[in-house]
This record gives sequence, structure tokens and C-alpha cells, in this order.
Amino acid sequence: MALSAESADLLKDFDLVNGSEKKEDVTRARALLCWPSSLPKVTVFAGPQLEVIQTFSAGVDDLPFEQIPEPVKIFSNAGAYARSVSEHAMALILTLCKNVNRKDRANSYPLKGRTLAILGSGGIGTAASKMARNGFGLRTIGISRSFRHPEEFDETLSPDRLDHAFRSADILLCALPLNKFTHGLVNYDYLSKMKKNVVIVNVGRAEAIVENDIHRLLVENPDARFGTDVFWRENSKEVFESKLWELPNFSGTLHRAGAIASPEVMAEAVEVAVRNMRNYLSTGRADNLVNRSDYV
Amino acid sequence: MALSAESADLLKDFDLVNGSEKKEDVTRARALLCWPSSLPKVTVFAGPQLEVIQTFSAGVDDLPFEQIPEPVKIFSNAGAYARSVSEHAMALILTLCKNVNRKDRANSYPLKGRTLAILGSGGIGTAASKMARNGFGLRTIGISRSFRHPEEFDETLSPDRLDHAFRSADILLCALPLNKFTHGLVNYDYLSKMKKNVVIVNVGRAEAIVENDIHRLLVENPDARFGTDVFWRENSKEVFESKLWELPNFSGTLHRAGAIASPEVMAEAVEVAVRNMRNYLSTGRADNLVNRSDYV
Repeated sequence: MALSAESADLLKDFDLVNGSEKKEDVTRARALLCWPSSLPKVTVFAGPQLEVIQTFSAGVDDLPFEQIPEPVKIFSNAGAYARSVSEHAMALILTLCKNVNRKDRANSYPLKGRTLAILGSGGIGTAASKMARNGFGLRTIGISRSFRHPEEFDETLSPDRLDHAFRSADILLCALPLNKFTHGLVNYDYLSKMKKNVVIVNVGRAEAIVENDIHRLLVENPDARFGTDVFWRENSKEVFESKLWELPNFSGTLHRAGAIASPEVMAEAVEVAVRNMRNYLSTGRADNLVNRSDYV
Repeated sequence: MALSAESADLLKDFDLVNGSEKKEDVTRARALLCWPSSLPKVTVFAGPQLEVIQTFSAGVDDLPFEQIPEPVKIFSNAGAYARSVSEHAMALILTLCKNVNRKDRANSYPLKGRTLAILGSGGIGTAASKMARNGFGLRTIGISRSFRHPEEFDETLSPDRLDHAFRSADILLCALPLNKFTHGLVNYDYLSKMKKNVVIVNVGRAEAIVENDIHRLLVENPDARFGTDVFWRENSKEVFESKLWELPNFSGTLHRAGAIASPEVMAEAVEVAVRNMRNYLSTGRADNLVNRSDYV
């Protein structure tokens, strides 16, 4: 991807080959700044001096880890879309709670004082917790292996308390990265223990939830509601057609929460990635080092 | 309407005829506690000792003012639905900004830092301003004849600055009571001066906006978006069928923001009305005295 003039300017102290995926350019590169989708192509050209990869995306679940030599450091763009995606998460939650666009006169669910459980406490989960508490008086529970900002939640739980979180949630927000620990985490076993009027929203990766299990829940319990911005993939491609759309207790958007939400969001996120890469190249330190063992 | 045991208990010091619309009960009543829709029936039975009417509804635009003798005081239930309706307003705003349920991949509109102009600074407008500022970092402008809580807005304007408010709004929330000053207020003249990407939401009364004018705006400018919980009336009956539903840049709900939103909201609002009536009967003072000259 070609960088804007502003972003390219941030890298003016380096030998920048802007927008090139040509073999000779990639082979001599010390650093790659790219979308994961272009990585399968470029990694095969990578030379021995490749030291670091910085993604524009927050998620790195579709990186070709096996093609990237072990010593290469990978930095994600986690957090760069936090504001946009958490606004989007609140939009899905509110649409479902208030039945927007439904003409069947189902009840609305008040928000204030209700419990919002958030799976994942990264940038998105933390920003959503702040919006939910400060804007609507929701009580929030964060569930995560670690918390950078535990003070932004009313309660924090480690993943071994997942069962408790599922039982106490009026609203469940899934803002998880997809890795070997989270794949298929939200299954019928958990879903069937939730409250009758539960509202479930996913803005992380679809595969954290088992598609057939959430569909089964919505059919069995019309009072439960589900909204998602992310859809399950076939051959690495997200498939937006889904039998979920036929259900009245479902709302969706076509993966619009993050980068492609608006030109403004995209430009900001790209700049965050560029700054992080510059920090690494200048100081050897940067945010969001990816732990390969979470994925491989 | 029959009161719940809890609400009836609040009036235990008075001679309460609960749930009766019978002629003999109405004729001897000093006070009526009712929905406006039942008033045309009961006012014809009203006796000379009728002193006060308290509505369960927040809006009193459909009261039969000409049938209610001048000395009778009327108290509305303004503010009783503020939390529920303002949550609903935010739901419509977010649904539209984030294109929930739209499959056409139109851009999302970020919220943070944008300007939300709110017509009406009663309970709903004020609560919505707090949610918008505290939850999403929106900048708010309130437009009203008077403000009980001006500190809850970033900027306050009197109605003679309406033009300025319309021009500067990224989002316009209409939370106006319907009276002779607000009927048809939002017309094409104002709408055509708004920003290209404007998002307009109405949770007050439909007739504050001219239906054909908002329809024209949405057809002429696909980037403008409109959502409403309230629909235009024919023969005093709200008609939910509307050509607006055919437009991709429209979202709606069937007057579900307030009383019929949920049993919980209804029960709370009825109790607020009962307490206000008790205050009047005990002390001669109560909130929300209706100014007849706004309506007649």
C-alpha cells in the first residue's frame, strides 16, 4: 500500500520504498510495513536482513507465521482502531437493545445498571468499557489474561472465571483477538447458560464464536439477540452471506468497524503503524510485539 | 388504567378510585391521573370540583384542551422517560452513523469530536447530551427557550440561533415537545443548509419535522441519514407505514422509546406521575405544570 505524503514524511530518515511489493525491493528490506493479506506474497521474497514486520491491521491471525523466519519480530497495530471499533460495538449493542429497524414490537432492553461482560481487554475492550460506564451507566466486567487498564472496568476476571462472566452478563461483548486459545471459545455450552434476554455482540474475529451454536441459540430463544461486524471465513475469505440474516434477533454490519469504516479512521491507523515502526527502527523498541506462541 | 399495588399504596391517604373511567367516579373526582388518550372520554363527565389532571405521558400535545375547564391545572410527566428515550436516541444515532443492518458498504461516520445539536433541553435532551459527551466525546449544542441544566451542554443557544445550530451540526437530535411553536419547525429551508453527511434523529413528536421535506432531503442527498421513533399522525393516530422505510438512509422504530419500551420503563414512569400527583394533593406544589398558551 502506498503511504500518504504525511505518513511517508514520518519515515524520511529511512530509505523508504513506498507502495512497492516488487521482489527486488522486498529482498533488500530490513523492515516491512504492510497488510497481512499482502504478506504471503512478499514473504517468499524476503531476504536475510529482514528484521521486522509491522502490520497495518490490529489482528494478525491470518499472518503466514510458518513462512516468516523465527528471528523476524512482528508488531501488530493493536489499539489503532480502538475508538472506531468500540463506537461500532456500542452501535451494535444499542441497535439490538432498542430493536432498531425491527417492526415486530419486541421489548426494548434498558441499559442503565445492566451488566456488560467484555471478552478481551485490549484497546477495543477497554474503550468500550469506558463508553458503556460513562455514557450509559452499565456495570462492566472485563475477562482477560492480563489488563493494561484494570481501572476502566468495574470488575476484572481471569479466563478461568469465564463461566461466571457468561452467567452474569446482560450484554456480552466479544473483542478478542483470534488465536489458538480463543478459536471456538464461545460455544453452545457457554451460550446455553446465559440469561434469557442476553444481547451478544462480536467485533473481534468471527471464529471466536461457533457459528452453528450462536445460530442455534437465536432460534431456540427469540429473546436472545446477536450482532456482529465479523463473519466466518472460508478459504481465508470472510463470507458475509449467512443464515443469521434471516433471523429477527440478529443485526450485522459487513466488517465496517475498523479500517474501511471511513477514510479518516484508515488514515489515523496507518499513521499509528508508521510511528510504531519508526520507533522500532530508531530505538529498537515499539508497542504490540506479537507473541508467536499464541498463534503457532 | 389500574395502578400497581405499589403505586396505589403511594396514594393510600386519598380516596383512590383505581382504574375507573366510570361516569360517577369521574364526576366526583378532584384529581384525574390518566393517559391523554382516555381524556376525551372522561373530561365530558368531569364535575365542578375537578382541580387537577396529571398525565402518565410526557407529551400533552394530544390533550383536548378546549374540553378542560380553564381553572383545572394540568401536570405532564415530562422527564419520566428521559433515560429510556435518551438511550433510544443514542441507539438511532449510532445505528445510522455505523450503518447497522445496511449491506451497501456506505461509509461509517466517527463520533468523537463531532458536533451534536439537540433541539429541546428537557429531560430527554439533557440526558442525551450527557450520554453523548461522557460516552463518545461528542460536542453538544443545546437549543431551547430555557435551560434547567445548561452545564450539561458545551454550548447553549436560544431558538433565534436555530440557523447557526443547523449549519454546524454533524448530528441533529430532535427532542422537542409538540406545540404551536414547534409544529413543522424543521422544514426544507433548514434541512437544505445542513452538512452533507448529517445524521438527523427524532424522538420527540414526528410533526416537529415536515415529512415531505425530510423525505426530499434523503432522496436528494444519500449521504444524509434520518432515524425516527415517532411517526406522523392521521386523525390523531400515528401511522407507522411510511415511504421513508424504502430508503437505505433511513432507520426507524415504532414509537418504542418510552412507555411501551419495556414493562420496567412503564412501571417507573407511572410511579413518577403518582408521586407528582401526591405532591400536588399534599402540598399544592408539583413539577411540570403545563402552560396552556403553548398549545392553544
